[in-house]
Order: sequence, then structure tokens, then C-alpha cells
Amino acid sequence: MPAYDPENIFAKILRGEIPATRVYEDDETLAFMDIMPRADGHLLVIPKTPCRNVLDASPEQLAAVMNTVQKLSHAVMKAFGAEGVTIQQFNEAAGGQEVFHMHFHVLPRHEGDRLRPPGQMGDMQEIAAHAEKIRAALA
Amino acid sequence: MPAYDPENIFAKILRGEIPATRVYEDDETLAFMDIMPRADGHLLVIPKTPCRNVLDASPEQLAAVMNTVQKLSHAVMKAFGAEGVTIQQFNEAAGGQEVFHMHFHVLPRHEGDRLRPPGQMGDMQEIAAHAEKIRAALA
Repeated sequence: MPAYDPENIFAKILRGEIPATRVYEDDETLAFMDIMPRADGHLLVIPKTPCRNVLDASPEQLAAVMNTVQKLSHAVMKAFGAEGVTIQQFNEAAGGQEVFHMHFHVLPRHEGDRLRPPGQMGDMQEIAAHAEKIRAALA
Repeated sequence: MPAYDPENIFAKILRGEIPATRVYEDDETLAFMDIMPRADGHLLVIPKTPCRNVLDASPEQLAAVMNTVQKLSHAVMKAFGAEGVTIQQFNEAAGGQEVFHMHFHVLPRHEGDRLRPPGQMGDMQEIAAHAEKIRAALA
């Protein structure tokens, strides 16, 4: 497995070098909106410390990220009146990974919905409004 | 969210009331083959103690399950020469969950492959052979 590349875009988000629509952070993790949302409220949870994916994550990174995934799963269900949550996590390019800083996708789901196709840019104003709903649900 | 139902099929597997093709267990977790594999080596990781899904899991259950997910991710990559791993986890029916004992799907992936459609029963002899490869990779 290649070494961690500190120039990946999530590392740049963590350093504040590029913007992201943040919804939650604590000492160990950050949650922000996916800019190609497959469902309204689709967000990502990442550790603040470097690791490429689940394959090289420490037990502490995995535990911290899963606690935030749980917290945000409850928040998106409340924010969007969702009845469920789908969690996806991709490791290496063959596994579907595109940014090589470990991240978990949290997708609010409603009965009978379908995820939108991947790779389609969302409307940034709509994403900002969804983020505001999630922040309100967390408050 | 409904209460945990101790008659779900993974609870029955844990109690040994129905069979499963087990590949790994420790004090806190069990890993066994998915009988509707979407990729060769598709397996599930569950906690031995009851919880419905990520929404009601304890920090200890989440940490233990993720450590086993990591261990088995390495094992399936070795067993199948896979270049990546996709992890999926479904919460409540709207989120894609069908058995209401928390489980994480671990799917070995190869460059350019596609997951098979969900809901299709696998060949049990083939699944047993795949399990044997995973056990060998863990040994």
C-alpha cells in the first residue's frame, strides 16, 4: 500500500487550505458535507490524524471515527426525517476510494428511495442548507 | 427504533442454533461468510453481544467490530489477491438492513470488477472453499 500523501484534499481541508462545509468536529474527528451527494445530507467523517484507510488505521482512529459516525447518523435522521442510514467506506482504488485519507460516508435514507449516481456535483447552496439542518439537529 | 429481537438469524448463529460458515472469532466478535455473496470472499463481521445496528451500538461494540473488520480486510486481500476492500453497513430497513443484529459487510475488490447484484444465493461449496482461503490467510 502506498504511503500516506499529505497533499490529498482532505488533508488540505484539515489544514484549512481549501474550504469544506463543516458540520461537526471534536478533538479527533471532522465531519463535512460530500460535494457529490448521493442523498440529501450525505456527509463524510474523517480522523484528524493521518491514515490512508481502514487498512492502516489505528484502533484509536477507528474508534473515534465510528463514534462520530454514530453521532452524525442520529443527527441526519433527525435533520431529514430519515428512517435509516447507509454507511459506506472504500479502501484503495479497487475498493472505490478516490481520496486517500480514511473517510466514512453517512447517507440518510428514506423508505423506497434510491441513491443518486456517484460523481455528480451537488448544488452548493442546497448543500449549505442541508448542513445547517444537521448542525441544528446536533445542537 | 424497535427493540433488539433475540430471534434474528444472526443471534441464532451466535447461539449455534443455525449453521454459518465461520472464518474468525474472538471474545467480542464473529466473522462468517455472506450466503448471498456480491463478490468472492464477501463476509460479515458482527459483535457477539446484542445491538440492532450502529444507532444503538456501544463504543466497545463499535471498536471491537472495526478491529475485526480491519483484520479480515487484510485477510481477504491476501486470500484473493484483492487490491481493495469495500465496506458497507446498513441501518434500519430504509438504510438497507435486513437482519437486525449489527453487521459490517467486507467485500474484497479487484480493479475494474463490479459487485454482483444483491439477494442472489451463492453456491455453498464455493463459499466453503472461499472461507478456507480466508482461514489460511489468517493463520
